[in-house]
Amino acid sequence: MSTTSLQVIYFFLLALVAVGVFASDPELVSDFAANPAATNASFFTFTGFRDDVTAPAGTFLVKKASLAEFPGLNGLGVSIAKLSYQPGTTNPPHIHPRAAELLFVLQGSLSVGLVDTTTNKLFVQKLEMGDMFVFPKGLVHFQFNDGQHEAKAISAFGSSNPGTVSLPATLFGSGIDDKILSKAFKVSTDTVKMLKNALTMKKC
Amino acid sequence: MSTTSLQVIYFFLLALVAVGVFASDPELVSDFAANPAATNASFFTFTGFRDDVTAPAGTFLVKKASLAEFPGLNGLGVSIAKLSYQPGTTNPPHIHPRAAELLFVLQGSLSVGLVDTTTNKLFVQKLEMGDMFVFPKGLVHFQFNDGQHEAKAISAFGSSNPGTVSLPATLFGSGIDDKILSKAFKVSTDTVKMLKNALTMKKC
Amino acid sequence: MSTTSLQVIYFFLLALVAVGVFASDPELVSDFAANPAATNASFFTFTGFRDDVTAPAGTFLVKKASLAEFPGLNGLGVSIAKLSYQPGTTNPPHIHPRAAELLFVLQGSLSVGLVDTTTNKLFVQKLEMGDMFVFPKGLVHFQFNDGQHEAKAISAFGSSNPGTVSLPATLFGSGIDDKILSKAFKVSTDTVKMLKNALTMKKC
Amino acid sequence: MSTTSLQVIYFFLLALVAVGVFASDPELVSDFAANPAATNASFFTFTGFRDDVTAPAGTFLVKKASLAEFPGLNGLGVSIAKLSYQPGTTNPPHIHPRAAELLFVLQGSLSVGLVDTTTNKLFVQKLEMGDMFVFPKGLVHFQFNDGQHEAKAISAFGSSNPGTVSLPATLFGSGIDDKILSKAFKVSTDTVKMLKNALTMKKC
Amino acid sequence: MSTTSLQVIYFFLLALVAVGVFASDPELVSDFAANPAATNASFFTFTGFRDDVTAPAGTFLVKKASLAEFPGLNGLGVSIAKLSYQPGTTNPPHIHPRAAELLFVLQGSLSVGLVDTTTNKLFVQKLEMGDMFVFPKGLVHFQFNDGQHEAKAISAFGSSNPGTVSLPATLFGSGIDDKILSKAFKVSTDTVKMLKNALTMKKC
Amino acid sequence: MSTTSLQVIYFFLLALVAVGVFASDPELVSDFAANPAATNASFFTFTGFRDDVTAPAGTFLVKKASLAEFPGLNGLGVSIAKLSYQPGTTNPPHIHPRAAELLFVLQGSLSVGLVDTTTNKLFVQKLEMGDMFVFPKGLVHFQFNDGQHEAKAISAFGSSNPGTVSLPATLFGSGIDDKILSKAFKVSTDTVKMLKNALTMKKC
Repeated sequence: MSTTSLQVIYFFLLALVAVGVFASDPELVSDFAANPAATNASFFTFTGFRDDVTAPAGTFLVKKASLAEFPGLNGLGVSIAKLSYQPGTTNPPHIHPRAAELLFVLQGSLSVGLVDTTTNKLFVQKLEMGDMFVFPKGLVHFQFNDGQHEAKAISAFGSSNPGTVSLPATLFGSGIDDKILSKAFKVSTDTVKMLKNALTMKKC
Repeated sequence: MSTTSLQVIYFFLLALVAVGVFASDPELVSDFAANPAATNASFFTFTGFRDDVTAPAGTFLVKKASLAEFPGLNGLGVSIAKLSYQPGTTNPPHIHPRAAELLFVLQGSLSVGLVDTTTNKLFVQKLEMGDMFVFPKGLVHFQFNDGQHEAKAISAFGSSNPGTVSLPATLFGSGIDDKILSKAFKVSTDTVKMLKNALTMKKC
Repeated sequence: MSTTSLQVIYFFLLALVAVGVFASDPELVSDFAANPAATNASFFTFTGFRDDVTAPAGTFLVKKASLAEFPGLNGLGVSIAKLSYQPGTTNPPHIHPRAAELLFVLQGSLSVGLVDTTTNKLFVQKLEMGDMFVFPKGLVHFQFNDGQHEAKAISAFGSSNPGTVSLPATLFGSGIDDKILSKAFKVSTDTVKMLKNALTMKKC
Repeated sequence: MSTTSLQVIYFFLLALVAVGVFASDPELVSDFAANPAATNASFFTFTGFRDDVTAPAGTFLVKKASLAEFPGLNGLGVSIAKLSYQPGTTNPPHIHPRAAELLFVLQGSLSVGLVDTTTNKLFVQKLEMGDMFVFPKGLVHFQFNDGQHEAKAISAFGSSNPGTVSLPATLFGSGIDDKILSKAFKVSTDTVKMLKNALTMKKC
Repeated sequence: MSTTSLQVIYFFLLALVAVGVFASDPELVSDFAANPAATNASFFTFTGFRDDVTAPAGTFLVKKASLAEFPGLNGLGVSIAKLSYQPGTTNPPHIHPRAAELLFVLQGSLSVGLVDTTTNKLFVQKLEMGDMFVFPKGLVHFQFNDGQHEAKAISAFGSSNPGTVSLPATLFGSGIDDKILSKAFKVSTDTVKMLKNALTMKKC
Repeated sequence: MSTTSLQVIYFFLLALVAVGVFASDPELVSDFAANPAATNASFFTFTGFRDDVTAPAGTFLVKKASLAEFPGLNGLGVSIAKLSYQPGTTNPPHIHPRAAELLFVLQGSLSVGLVDTTTNKLFVQKLEMGDMFVFPKGLVHFQFNDGQHEAKAISAFGSSNPGTVSLPATLFGSGIDDKILSKAFKVSTDTVKMLKNALTMKKC
């Protein structure tokens, strides 16, 4: 068997695994995405959050337990993220294309906001420890810690892989042409360049 | 207009509201289940968990924030519950018919288990603080606090109304005929009666 | 090519086949799960029920034509089971996690029951030959032949692989720790042991 | 309150009920489409098939237990039909737009066929008593009793309202213009008229 | 490694690829069905319609950009077709089993029709340039150019692979037995043979 | 009957109608969202695009035929928009939260772009007349007419109400606090104010 043939096989295998990883959540026809006889309880277990999630001073930090980090979620339509906000930091405006997010404040307080698509109306709320807020699928939303202390939250998503479109990074950090952004935001290309530089100088 | 006619109208209205409340989650064709112009941020907010959820000594306690408690979740396919387990208590074997559950241990440690439908195999795991375990939709599962201290957890569900079938209560507390349970569990009707009494004497 | 490499390839192939078999029902984008040019009518045919399904004296028997027995159902969201109940036997309380069941009495009479999750209310009904009863997805239900003659039924499911959680077997036959069952059912561990023995002595 | 106002209200109520009846199956967020506290077991029961379904001599007969006949199926994604074929009769080519059909031969024998959309290939099979055949959603299929005795079957569908497009009746009995049918079937308008007359003279 | 082993592997690979191609649309858990790092913009691009779609004189022509022609649509639940109707031609009665069709008249005028499954009622409409008409999933529909000039249209579908059951071709061109068609359409087998010949003589 | 009672009834009716309008697309259990006996062909027809869609000089214009404009689409999972781009104009970066978009260039040429959520990679493409490009659900995308002539396109969506999040308008036109935007985009609040003014001075 030639090396080439083997490479062809490996290519197919990798392609199939890739597809397997990418196309999954919607309604299993089995209990879970593994052969029960060949699986043990660690398939259903995630220990990656044993260390507390705490953002470095002056920053915001999110850690996810979704399909990529926790393959046992495959096809089960649920995932979790942990979030830490140092005082004065923000989880910048973003969108989850594949799930609503239900945020639960574990510590401190948070200001949150979301904008709907029909009226472009901003909904803002101040949340105390123990409060929850739901961000519907596909809507722009953000959180801001305007308190004096670290805030912590945990978020539940109705998908094993909700996805995140971080708007500053997507708009000004992905290489969209200055001219297009200039037209879109009605500002000069110099302002666009300035916005791009601001984002890339300190990593978001 | 006669009283009878009015009663007919009210009956229809109530029936429709009931249907509205009961038939909802699957894929909205709107941002959320409310008119954005007539809604404010409290629609998306739940404050019912501000007081910590702590079970009385010797008991297990669960509080839900699902469709009934938090109507803003309507159609968004996600909900959360908080759980408190005093030492030696168990969240008895149960099933959620409409969603997988992703349990996150906030405090203490927990033993968890689930049984699949193909091989009737029991998967058990000891979870430490910060660990997660996923219970697939429709499978029997339980948690047990075999430690010396209160354990706390938060659970995320991929439905706004996952539902709960508590098996002890459903089997021995809903009035299923002694003869049927006797046949099913291969024990005498006296044993069935004893099991029923045990459950109803102290509320689960 | 080394044996190890081959084993790796076989492992991947088996894993993929397993996933293929397990993750399927939800809405095909093709007519059916096979290449029409390379398929013939036997793909859509199941002959495993030609022999009548009749339970041995004193027993209950169910035979399924679902995804495992009839691969042509893959992705088509429907399956069937045949059931035979000798006098005095029961199809013990169980749950189908992935489909509602529509039971049709072909011969004799049956008593059926189901319990909802919101009010834990038991719904019981006596069915005559020709009657139907629908058991919603994920709810505990059972059938009992309290007549003098064999009863036969056929059940339709809205999934190619509805799954079955048989509650006696799951609770007392899968190895859940005596202590946990003792807590859950509010009985002594001796009673739990007795229940386990009862179930394992004669196969359900 | 004026008559006009009442008419407006009734109009709205009827409109809403109509929508309620028509838009339902996909994934309930409740156990079933009724308030459990105000419902009893007859909600889940259908007795309309107590009398045997037998076609008059020389005819084919189908009786359905779907959403219209059995409202308790609402949202549960399953329904059943009973079919009787006298010798030499056919269930003419038709399509179910919202579900696959799993046909089970209860008595006699049947020839069945289906055509796929990719290759326009005809799949035919002779079924004996006890055999099953699955017709995927949206594909043209038919059954024919080419035996000497009545054949009986029961069909399971993966929708509470699968719908039926009977092709002879739809094509030649709904009033489609002769010219259009003439073009479509490449025959003269006289032949179209003859086909229309044939269908309307004896009711299919 | 033996040739036989290799053949087994290739068989599995082909089987898996086939399944991958056939089972896809419903709700991705990724942005699209490819690895973004290894993909470029041509994955999302289709250039097969650069040449105008124009039917030869006296004919009707449809060109599709669906899953088979445009693999990037995989899992995205949308596709397009272009249609050209010379004067006096018809897009014969057909069904799309997996999506509604939204037809937009780009040039000329068209008569369209559809038949529902509940009342077998024909809905007909004359469309001018710029008009749209929606054909619900699974219903028989057709278009007819009764004008003096070529008509052009573009159709949007809510599936990457809506499928097409062309009724003349399916009924009289797939080989269904004359006897069955004779029974179904209540005409002699000679008429059936004539209909079959008509369709096969000039390609539809 | 008091005015108050009537107001209560009207309130309920309006609430229900609102819900009816908002919660619909996912899989009908009927042919379409209307009673066929009481409906005619105009229910399926949209004539709002008879006048050509042409943007005024120096602007971009989009007109939609979605659920709000064309109620017959209710539950059918498809809609269309027409777009006109004068030279040098852009359809600014935006997201459709409920459907993929398949854009077809009817006239002129367009540059398009999209950014994925996994690698934040920008995919750009120059499209000629007749070309198509698919923008997956929930991803940021845009179009730009960098040619000398008007460009026209038609877009198909896999939802009757795909929704649009226009990012400039959502980020800088909905009233999100300057401080939050300043943090998110790493620029001064003066720059944020300037961006807000730019957008509100000339309507996008």
